[in-house]
Amino acid sequence: MPHAQTGLGMTGSVDLTPLVDALPAGCVIADPDRMDAYRWDRANDPHAGVPLAVVRATCTADVQAVMRFATAHRVAVVARGAGSGLSGGASAVAGCLVVSTERMREITVDPSSRTAVVEPGLFNAEVKAAAAEHGLWYPPDPSSYEFCSIGGNVATNAGGLCCVKYGVTGDYVLGLTVVLADGTAVELGGPRIKDVAGLSLTKLFVGSEGTLGVITRIVLRLLPAQRPRATLVATFASLDDATGAVLAVTRGLRPSMLEFMDRTSINAVEDLTRMGLDRSAEAMLVIQSDEPGTHAAEEIARIGELCRTGHAVEVFTTDDPDTGEAFTVARRMAIPAMEKKGALLLEDVGVPVPELGTLVRGIEEISRARDVRIAVIAHAGDGNTHPLIAFDPMDADQSARAQLAYGEVMELAIGLGGTITGEHGVGRLKKAWLPDYLGPDALELNRRIKDCLDPAGILNPGAVF
Amino acid sequence: MPHAQTGLGMTGSVDLTPLVDALPAGCVIADPDRMDAYRWDRANDPHAGVPLAVVRATCTADVQAVMRFATAHRVAVVARGAGSGLSGGASAVAGCLVVSTERMREITVDPSSRTAVVEPGLFNAEVKAAAAEHGLWYPPDPSSYEFCSIGGNVATNAGGLCCVKYGVTGDYVLGLTVVLADGTAVELGGPRIKDVAGLSLTKLFVGSEGTLGVITRIVLRLLPAQRPRATLVATFASLDDATGAVLAVTRGLRPSMLEFMDRTSINAVEDLTRMGLDRSAEAMLVIQSDEPGTHAAEEIARIGELCRTGHAVEVFTTDDPDTGEAFTVARRMAIPAMEKKGALLLEDVGVPVPELGTLVRGIEEISRARDVRIAVIAHAGDGNTHPLIAFDPMDADQSARAQLAYGEVMELAIGLGGTITGEHGVGRLKKAWLPDYLGPDALELNRRIKDCLDPAGILNPGAVF
Repeated sequence: MPHAQTGLGMTGSVDLTPLVDALPAGCVIADPDRMDAYRWDRANDPHAGVPLAVVRATCTADVQAVMRFATAHRVAVVARGAGSGLSGGASAVAGCLVVSTERMREITVDPSSRTAVVEPGLFNAEVKAAAAEHGLWYPPDPSSYEFCSIGGNVATNAGGLCCVKYGVTGDYVLGLTVVLADGTAVELGGPRIKDVAGLSLTKLFVGSEGTLGVITRIVLRLLPAQRPRATLVATFASLDDATGAVLAVTRGLRPSMLEFMDRTSINAVEDLTRMGLDRSAEAMLVIQSDEPGTHAAEEIARIGELCRTGHAVEVFTTDDPDTGEAFTVARRMAIPAMEKKGALLLEDVGVPVPELGTLVRGIEEISRARDVRIAVIAHAGDGNTHPLIAFDPMDADQSARAQLAYGEVMELAIGLGGTITGEHGVGRLKKAWLPDYLGPDALELNRRIKDCLDPAGILNPGAVF
Repeated sequence: MPHAQTGLGMTGSVDLTPLVDALPAGCVIADPDRMDAYRWDRANDPHAGVPLAVVRATCTADVQAVMRFATAHRVAVVARGAGSGLSGGASAVAGCLVVSTERMREITVDPSSRTAVVEPGLFNAEVKAAAAEHGLWYPPDPSSYEFCSIGGNVATNAGGLCCVKYGVTGDYVLGLTVVLADGTAVELGGPRIKDVAGLSLTKLFVGSEGTLGVITRIVLRLLPAQRPRATLVATFASLDDATGAVLAVTRGLRPSMLEFMDRTSINAVEDLTRMGLDRSAEAMLVIQSDEPGTHAAEEIARIGELCRTGHAVEVFTTDDPDTGEAFTVARRMAIPAMEKKGALLLEDVGVPVPELGTLVRGIEEISRARDVRIAVIAHAGDGNTHPLIAFDPMDADQSARAQLAYGEVMELAIGLGGTITGEHGVGRLKKAWLPDYLGPDALELNRRIKDCLDPAGILNPGAVF
């Protein structure tokens, strides 16, 4: 029987009425046009399906109602934050319920315990801003921090630029509320810096990409405000010299940012900005230090020496924060600049830091062999790279070659003892490579945990596994 | 049929011959006298059983052989590092196989990736020393670091004194080899700083106390060597002033150590050492900074100001590392000093940092009500306390009151939003309080994961669950 107020009702064989009745007014969207905004994340998965409905949850209880309904009717549930994911982890599945957390935006910062309790829909930048009001700092900084949600960050264990010194999202998660497949809401951990009572389940849900439960509340650890940074930019005629300098730096120092750009990305940024970058450089490093007082400039000076010893062509340094920010523009413009060259496949393979040079050389070879443009930027201090594969989506042959290159980059990383994804998640785009990466025993162990927590397979089916 | 070489054979109803044959010579101990050294950890659990045998494994394959045998014969397996645990997590179970990792002591440090691959039997101090040979540092520092094993540290997610700035064991574990109940050896993670491919299973095994598998190989992240520390000691006439100073410090600063002693522990140390401590002080703080150059002394000076503003009676500071180490002696002597007062029950309850004062006051009340001496030392910056309950084990009534106090301290912590164990683990001594701490839903989730990975219940039965 159709629902009187919303016009919702029988869709396919599932009657939405009990779900609509269990939720506050206006939570459920079943109009296909309106649902379009909830079908894709930034991976633009061409296989994204049309959901049964989208639920814009307002609280944990709403998510519980969705999961109870989904379990009762064996309907798939895809959790969705801000839709900024790059691996297709939030692509809608045909006939699923999309649970959007965009309206769950509460935050409470407790400066005395240096923690925050956050709902998943808040943007990362908003978490940072709320902490900053108390002189505190939430470090993890994915490049998308202005438009990615903290819930998505936790679900993918997102990284960023400051991770080289300050760690990834999971290092800041002290507790979670998670709604399980059957609708049970479980509180894990809490605002305690150390806690070893029971299994490490908070950590298990970090990075689980919506396949084990839906995160509805997050307890975060905060740090005192970051200090002003000193900045260095160095260019290198030789890639090996640049990666050698990276190793010389990480061997004994802890910069707060250590970013790498290859020649293709340097030239793409110069094409767009005409800021005077050295087009002949094989690589460029952008490095920051946030050590206290004059030690930031001193650490940057030491890094400058290491770069010069490592045959850098030019080294610029500054301890002026504004000038330093200008120095980082080239790195920040790399993705927009490559977007001018075509549609992008954004990779995030990672390797042990000493293998960084070999990885970049191998990617160059794949680029040549497949005749597609691939720029490489990297969180070099973590060995975590972003090969940016640009292609013309109207050119079917080039698109196919780009897809082949995308896979070959992952295979290359696996061969170097690396990972297929350092910070974006497996989602749907990378799952074909997960078995090769994990090997049969670790894959089976992953599957066993997944089946244990989601026996009916309704949580984000088709993602990761 | 008895085994020719070792004399091992039928013990109870299980024939050890196939196990002895599957292992290198000399691995299996079945002589009850020799097994005595493997029945207890430092919790001295009176209920520890007599094992079927002790296996002194030499490698992952040995542990696999044990698990295959144990699964085939439904024999319990208790994994054991150095036996320094304080919660009875390594107490032998009657008829079990104890797997000792004491002979698995290989370590390889790779300075270029700033990682180490370690076998579980190495002492924490030996890991630190091996890293130091390369100018590197493995931070986690349980008080027992000279005689606790790195495998036990991982199995309990051990903490320590530097955690207030540098995090706990799990923050340094990048990868593990784990032998599952059926004997499968699974490699999880590796020497990659960022890796989100698949579920966070490395983190799940950290802190699992031998209930999910046996850890046979650990990949650790290392840091550059710690800088010289400046040190402060401050005494307070009022407990509230001391805990107020702790909050003032953690609110905006990141000391590398922030330790607390209450009046009982101060007096116990003074009884033992006659070092001239202020017996009338209600509390003492010992704080260190490892900021670079003069900033260590500057941070300590700022902390000194915060202590004085918070009505400290006396504040001593030094930037001389040797003098600083002398300042920390009082804190380090607290446990030996309390051991002079009787047998000890070592607690490790933790609370959100703002609740520290209320916790210490509550423990004082329990001490009075139960008429047992309880000293409190604490990793104050983490809210992680060590109530040290001293009692005369020959006095049955006092022993019983000490046991009651032990439980009441945990109940108090739970009531303050705290945890029953911050860094020692649940083991066997604390498991009666785990259901109250976790609540039914989180407990059920813990059990579900345990049953999924250990369906026959052979992994450390009776511990945690």
